[in-house]
Amino acid sequence: MRLIPLTFFDDLMRLKRIPRSGWITYRISRHDAESVSSHSYSVAVIALVISETLRLRNRKVDVEEVLRMALLHDLSESLTFDISKAYLRYLGRIGSKVKARIERRAVSHLVSGLENSKLSRKFVRSLEEYSAAKSPESRIVHAADALDLLLQILEYQRMGYRKTTLDPIWRETKSKLKHCNLDIANDWMRRLEQARRKLDSTPRRKR
Amino acid sequence: MRLIPLTFFDDLMRLKRIPRSGWITYRISRHDAESVSSHSYSVAVIALVISETLRLRNRKVDVEEVLRMALLHDLSESLTFDISKAYLRYLGRIGSKVKARIERRAVSHLVSGLENSKLSRKFVRSLEEYSAAKSPESRIVHAADALDLLLQILEYQRMGYRKTTLDPIWRETKSKLKHCNLDIANDWMRRLEQARRKLDSTPRRKR
Amino acid sequence: MRLIPLTFFDDLMRLKRIPRSGWITYRISRHDAESVSSHSYSVAVIALVISETLRLRNRKVDVEEVLRMALLHDLSESLTFDISKAYLRYLGRIGSKVKARIERRAVSHLVSGLENSKLSRKFVRSLEEYSAAKSPESRIVHAADALDLLLQILEYQRMGYRKTTLDPIWRETKSKLKHCNLDIANDWMRRLEQARRKLDSTPRRKR
Amino acid sequence: MRLIPLTFFDDLMRLKRIPRSGWITYRISRHDAESVSSHSYSVAVIALVISETLRLRNRKVDVEEVLRMALLHDLSESLTFDISKAYLRYLGRIGSKVKARIERRAVSHLVSGLENSKLSRKFVRSLEEYSAAKSPESRIVHAADALDLLLQILEYQRMGYRKTTLDPIWRETKSKLKHCNLDIANDWMRRLEQARRKLDSTPRRKR
Amino acid sequence: MRLIPLTFFDDLMRLKRIPRSGWITYRISRHDAESVSSHSYSVAVIALVISETLRLRNRKVDVEEVLRMALLHDLSESLTFDISKAYLRYLGRIGSKVKARIERRAVSHLVSGLENSKLSRKFVRSLEEYSAAKSPESRIVHAADALDLLLQILEYQRMGYRKTTLDPIWRETKSKLKHCNLDIANDWMRRLEQARRKLDSTPRRKR
Amino acid sequence: MRLIPLTFFDDLMRLKRIPRSGWITYRISRHDAESVSSHSYSVAVIALVISETLRLRNRKVDVEEVLRMALLHDLSESLTFDISKAYLRYLGRIGSKVKARIERRAVSHLVSGLENSKLSRKFVRSLEEYSAAKSPESRIVHAADALDLLLQILEYQRMGYRKTTLDPIWRETKSKLKHCNLDIANDWMRRLEQARRKLDSTPRRKR
Repeated sequence: MRLIPLTFFDDLMRLKRIPRSGWITYRISRHDAESVSSHSYSVAVIALVISETLRLRNRKVDVEEVLRMALLHDLSESLTFDISKAYLRYLGRIGSKVKARIERRAVSHLVSGLENSKLSRKFVRSLEEYSAAKSPESRIVHAADALDLLLQILEYQRMGYRKTTLDPIWRETKSKLKHCNLDIANDWMRRLEQARRKLDSTPRRKR
Repeated sequence: MRLIPLTFFDDLMRLKRIPRSGWITYRISRHDAESVSSHSYSVAVIALVISETLRLRNRKVDVEEVLRMALLHDLSESLTFDISKAYLRYLGRIGSKVKARIERRAVSHLVSGLENSKLSRKFVRSLEEYSAAKSPESRIVHAADALDLLLQILEYQRMGYRKTTLDPIWRETKSKLKHCNLDIANDWMRRLEQARRKLDSTPRRKR
Repeated sequence: MRLIPLTFFDDLMRLKRIPRSGWITYRISRHDAESVSSHSYSVAVIALVISETLRLRNRKVDVEEVLRMALLHDLSESLTFDISKAYLRYLGRIGSKVKARIERRAVSHLVSGLENSKLSRKFVRSLEEYSAAKSPESRIVHAADALDLLLQILEYQRMGYRKTTLDPIWRETKSKLKHCNLDIANDWMRRLEQARRKLDSTPRRKR
Repeated sequence: MRLIPLTFFDDLMRLKRIPRSGWITYRISRHDAESVSSHSYSVAVIALVISETLRLRNRKVDVEEVLRMALLHDLSESLTFDISKAYLRYLGRIGSKVKARIERRAVSHLVSGLENSKLSRKFVRSLEEYSAAKSPESRIVHAADALDLLLQILEYQRMGYRKTTLDPIWRETKSKLKHCNLDIANDWMRRLEQARRKLDSTPRRKR
Repeated sequence: MRLIPLTFFDDLMRLKRIPRSGWITYRISRHDAESVSSHSYSVAVIALVISETLRLRNRKVDVEEVLRMALLHDLSESLTFDISKAYLRYLGRIGSKVKARIERRAVSHLVSGLENSKLSRKFVRSLEEYSAAKSPESRIVHAADALDLLLQILEYQRMGYRKTTLDPIWRETKSKLKHCNLDIANDWMRRLEQARRKLDSTPRRKR
Repeated sequence: MRLIPLTFFDDLMRLKRIPRSGWITYRISRHDAESVSSHSYSVAVIALVISETLRLRNRKVDVEEVLRMALLHDLSESLTFDISKAYLRYLGRIGSKVKARIERRAVSHLVSGLENSKLSRKFVRSLEEYSAAKSPESRIVHAADALDLLLQILEYQRMGYRKTTLDPIWRETKSKLKHCNLDIANDWMRRLEQARRKLDSTPRRKR
C-alpha cells in the first residue's frame, strides 16, 4: 500500500454524518441523535474496559480482536444507513434475515475499498464472528453495544427526554444484554436499573 | 469489579456531546462540528488500517496498544473540554506546557473513575507513551490523528465550507503529519493534496 | 368512525421528524436536510399546479387522485425510514424489488391504522397506481417528485452547498424527469438547467 | 404554460425553511420547531382522512377543494413569515384585521408568480373561502389545522417538552376546534384529551 | 422596586430564542441564523467603540445614551418577532408605517413589565430618539446596526454561504450606512468593501 | 481612527459562534446552548435595569462604566473559548489563578486589535475593576451575570430540561449572587426561588 485507501476512508468519514435512526423512532430530536461514529466509539471503549477487567480476573481475552470487532460492528451503515429497526422488527424473523443479507453485501462492498484483499478478508472474518455471537470476544462486543444504549438512554433522560417514551427501548436492550451470557451482566443490569430509578425518585424526594 | 464503573462511563458518554472547538475557530457551524467521540472513532479505525498494512509489510506492530492509545488519546477533553488551540498557540511554548499539565491532571482524575488501580495505571501509561510520541505505536496514532483532520477538511469542503478559511488548519496539520516520521506519510500527503486540488479544479473544468 | 384514527395520525406525525436520507448522502448537513413531510408538501403543490395547468389546456385530469397520490407517495417511510438509495442502487435490480416489497408491506401496516377498511383499500389503490406509473395522474406526481428535487438542489446551491457534490443527484433526477413522458417536461428541464447555469455564471460576471 | 412558474416555485420552496414561530413562543427549541411546509402537509393528509370519512357517511364533500385549501392555507407565510401570534393576539380585534390584510396582499403577490391569471384567481378564491370559514370544505380544513396542532403538542410532550408550558396553546386550539362546527369534533376532542391525560398518568402509575 | 421585574426579564430572555428572520430570507440555514440577542450585543460593542473613538477626537458623545439605545433598539422583537422585512419592503411606504406602529405598541407593552413608570418612560424616550435618527447618539447606533450586518455577511461568506445570494442585503445595508451621516462612514465602507473583495480574490490568486 | 478596527471586530463576531460550555456540562443540548454574545447581551440589559433602579433610589451609579464592564466581561472567551468550569473547579484555588492568568493575557491580545492604545487601556481598566469585584459598578455586573444564569435555568426548565440535572448550577449561582453584597439581592433570590418552585408545583396542582 503506497497510497492511503481513500475510498474506504471516505466511507468511514460518512459514518460521522449518519444519525442513529433508532433514536428518532424513540422521539429524540434528530439534532440530538448521536452519529454512528459516536456510538461505535463508546462501544469500543466500553468493550476495552470489559476486556481488561476480565483479563485482570485471569480470563484470556483477545483484546485486539475485541477492538477490531467493536470498531467495525456498524460499518455497514455507511452504505445502508440505519434502516429503521422498528420496521424490521415488524417484519419478524424475515426482517432479521433481510437485515443480515443487506449488511453482508454492504460490508463486502465497503472492504473492497481497502484495495487489499488480505485485510478485507480479515475484516470480514471479524464481522462474521461478531454476527455469529459465539466467541467470548464477540459476546463482549454485543454486551458493550447494549451497555452503550442503556447509558445513552440515561443520558437522554438526564437531559429531559421522557422516561415513558424510552421505556420500550430500555426493556428491549436489557433483554439483549441478558442474552450476551456474560456472568457479570447481572451485576451491571442491577446497577443500571438502580441509576435509572434514582433518576426518577430524586424529584420525588425533592418535592 | 462486580459493578460497572459508572463514573468512568458517564465521563465517557460526555465526549459525545463535546464539539471539537477547533472547527468552530475555523468557522464550521457549531451544528456541523463533530464531537470528540466521532473524531476518536475515525482515528482508531485509521490507526487500525495503518497498523494492519504495516504488519502485512512485516513490520511488528502492537495493534492492541495502538488501539488503546487511539481510543484514549482525547479522553481528557471529557473534563477539560476542548480548550481553544488558537489561544494556546498564541501562548507559545508555555501554552503547550499548560495544556500538557491540564491534560495530565484531567486524565488522572478520569481514570480514578475506573475504580481499578491496575487498569488506571495501564491507561495512564498508554497516554504517556502517546504524549512522548516516540514508540512506533504512538507515531501511528499521531499520524491517524492528522489524517482524520485532513480527511475531515476535505469533507467540509465537499459540503461547501470555504477552502481559504480552512487553509491554515490544512497547512498546520500537513506539517504535523510530516513530523510523525512514518515513511509512508509522504505518499499519503501527495494523494490527499491531489484529492484537494481535484476538488478545486472540477468546477473550473465544468465552467 | 366516531373517533379519529390516532394510530394512523401518530404515524403521520412521525414523517415530520424523518430526514430525507438522500441529502445526507450528498453531504447536506443533517440539520439542513428537509423532512419527508416537507418534501411531500412541495410535491403536492407542484402536482396541483401541473394538474391545473393541463386542465386549462383542456386535458382531463383527476386532480383529487393526483393530490391523494402526492400526499401518500412517501407514506411508507414513516415505518421504513428513508433507506439509503445509494445502497439500493448498488444492489441493482434486486434492490428495486427489495425496496418495493418493503414499502408495500409497510403501507399495508400503516393503513391498517385507519381502522376503516374501505378507506385503507382506497389509499392502497392510489399507491399501487403511483408505483405502476402508467396513468396520467401518476406520471404527474412522478414529475412533481423530480421537480421538487431539482428545485431543492438549486436551493441548496444558493445556500452555498457545492455544485459538484450535487451533480450526480441532479443528473439522475433529470433523467427520471425525462422518463415521466410528460410533453411539457422538456420545456421545464431547459428552464431549470438555465437557472442552474445562471447560478454558476453570476459570480463570473461579477468579478 | 410552456415554462414552469419558477417564481412561484421559489416562493413555495421557501416554506421549507420558515419555522412556525408559534412554537418558539411556547419554548420549543427553534431546531425542533417544524417548518410551515411540514405543518401544511399534515393538515392536508388529516383533511383528506376527514373528507373521506364523511363521504363514507354519505356526506357530499368536494375533496379536491378541501385539498387545495389545505395545501394553500399558509402560503402567505412564504412572504410574511410567521408573524408572532402572541403579538397579534395582544392587539385584539385590530390584530386580526391587520393579519388578514397583510395575508391578503401577500397572497395576491405570490399567485402573480404563477404567471397564469386564471389559476391565480382560482387559488385566491379557495383562500377566500378558507378565510370566510363557512363552507363545509373550509370547516374541514380549519378542523384539520387545529388537529395537527393538538397532535403536534402531544408529540412535543412525548419528547419531553413541558406540559404546563404548552397548556395555553392546547386550550386555545381546543376552543378553535370546537368552533369548527363539525359534529364529530366532540368525539375527537375527548379522544385527544384522553391521550394527553394518559401521557401524564403513565409515569404516576409507574412510580 | 423590592422585587426584580420578572415579566420584563422573561421578555428579555425570549430574545435569545428568536432568530433574525432576515437571514432566513437570504438563505442562511435557520440553525446558523443568529438570535436577536447576539446581534444586539455586537451592535452595542461596536457602538461603544465608535463612541469612544469619537470622544478621543474631542467630540462630545453621551455614551450612556448610546449604549441604552443600542441595547434596546430591537427589544420590540421579543413581542413581534422579526417580521419579514422582505414583505414590509414590498408594501412600500405603508410597510414602514405599519412596522413603526407595530413596534411602538410592542415597546409600550414590554416596558410596562418593568413595573416602574419612570424607567419605562426613560426607555421609551431612548427608543423614540433612535427612531427619529437625528441625534448624534442615535446615528452612531444606526451605523453600528449596519456595521454588524456587514461584518456578519463577511462571516457567513467565510463559512461558505454564497456571495451572490447575499449581494442584495450587502448593497441595501451599505446604502443604509451611508445615510447615517457619520463622516467616518466612508472610510469604513471602503475598508469593508476591500475585505469582501479580498475574500473573493484569494481563491483566484490561489488557483 | 480612519479605518474601523477590523481585527477587533472579527474577534467580537466570533463570540456569536462560541457556545457557553457550562450548559453542555449540565446536559443542555449543544444546539440549545446560548452563545457568549447572547449571554453578554442579557447581562448588559439586566445591569442597566439594576443601575437605573438604584439611581431612582438616589444611589450614585456610573451607568456608562457598568455597561462597559457588562459588555466586555466575557470578551476573553473569543480567544480562550469557554474553558470547562467543571475542570477548573476541580483544580481548586490553582484553577482560579490559571483561569485569571489565561484571561488576562487573552484580553491584552484582544484589545491590541483596537489599534488604539488609549482605548485599549480604558477597556483593560474596566475589566480589572470587574475582576477585583469591589466597586459598586462591578458588583452590579456580577449580580447581573448571576441573575442571567438563574433566569436561563428557569427558561431551560420551562422547555423541559430536568430540574435535578440543573440543581448544582442553580445552587452554585445562588451562592454567587449572595456574595455580590447588593442589599436587594435577597429580595431577588426569594422571588426567583418562588418562580422555580411554582414551576414544579404547577403540574402537581393540575393533576
